[in-house]
Amino acid sequence: MTDTAFASHAVAGVQRFGVGPRYSEAAVFNGVVYLAGMVPECAELDIRSQTANILAQIDARLAEMGSDKSRLLRVQIYLAHISDIAAMNEVWDAWVAPGHAPPRATVEARLARADWKIEVVATAAQYPGTPPATPT
Amino acid sequence: MTDTAFASHAVAGVQRFGVGPRYSEAAVFNGVVYLAGMVPECAELDIRSQTANILAQIDARLAEMGSDKSRLLRVQIYLAHISDIAAMNEVWDAWVAPGHAPPRATVEARLARADWKIEVVATAAQYPGTPPATPT
Amino acid sequence: MTDTAFASHAVAGVQRFGVGPRYSEAAVFNGVVYLAGMVPECAELDIRSQTANILAQIDARLAEMGSDKSRLLRVQIYLAHISDIAAMNEVWDAWVAPGHAPPRATVEARLARADWKIEVVATAAQYPGTPPATPT
Repeated sequence: MTDTAFASHAVAGVQRFGVGPRYSEAAVFNGVVYLAGMVPECAELDIRSQTANILAQIDARLAEMGSDKSRLLRVQIYLAHISDIAAMNEVWDAWVAPGHAPPRATVEARLARADWKIEVVATAAQYPGTPPATPT
Repeated sequence: MTDTAFASHAVAGVQRFGVGPRYSEAAVFNGVVYLAGMVPECAELDIRSQTANILAQIDARLAEMGSDKSRLLRVQIYLAHISDIAAMNEVWDAWVAPGHAPPRATVEARLARADWKIEVVATAAQYPGTPPATPT
Repeated sequence: MTDTAFASHAVAGVQRFGVGPRYSEAAVFNGVVYLAGMVPECAELDIRSQTANILAQIDARLAEMGSDKSRLLRVQIYLAHISDIAAMNEVWDAWVAPGHAPPRATVEARLARADWKIEVVATAAQYPGTPPATPT
């Protein structure tokens, strides 16, 4: 990996992943990965399962983009019921990369679907030398 | 990393636009544009009109800063009533640059004025080579 | 700015401050400081005192990381009661660096503890030439 390789991001501009007509799953610019608000793939789950499902989605997305949970820059968590925070934290604490826990903010907000209990907005840094990936 | 290298970004420093005593309309650093939470200019509008008004404001602000809606990195949408999401999406879908939809997160939150139905927080990338603009 | 200058940031990687098992107080990447959601250290305070306490924490954290309130890129404010906005603004207005007010978004959200009236998520730019600091 050369400086030139990294710089190629800036020149290449904005990369998008999981592009749909309404939103993309992620965008990358200058080595920073901006994920969409991740929501449960299966809403018939309790808060622990919904949290685990979302965190697994984040792992998968970050891997595609040359990053991982040890490179998170900020995580914003919206809970439909703030009273779920202790149960969410159980799953979170087991998932976090030790020594690399990100800045975090957790507030309550009603979400787009009534059966979603949690939505997570994550921002992360790519590893140095990540080449421009093929969008998926 | 050398100080010289680092300084080369920051020489341009933080640019601000629409600076007021309480907040600015936007800040730019290292090619990333951070907009303030955009709210309707005319609150006596329905959700579709308020959405369209805000998206037009975003277009105008990004144009001033060497960016546009095809360069959005993330959009966070707060709806006073999450039940407005379908109507908001109608306007959003017609506005999005095809193939460049940004990562997005939409949650419900009460806003600073009771007649505001939507507030939008957008982050975008400048186009390469955008010179430091004259703040407005 | 040169391509080389851009690349030199990424080599330095992600710095974290105030690292705990669940979250860090801050992360820094490419000259941008991402703070955690700051909450009152003493909840038995009214909105003005809680706001002042949080803003003082932000000042202290930014100073540790080679930044300050004149370099804020965006501030997101969550109020447990949006009706507190006027009182919060009084404290905010007295704190803001004149001519450098950041883009801001303020919405209502229930917070993790019932006695917290405000939570603030701040993003800022480091000063040029800030060396990698010793994490605390």
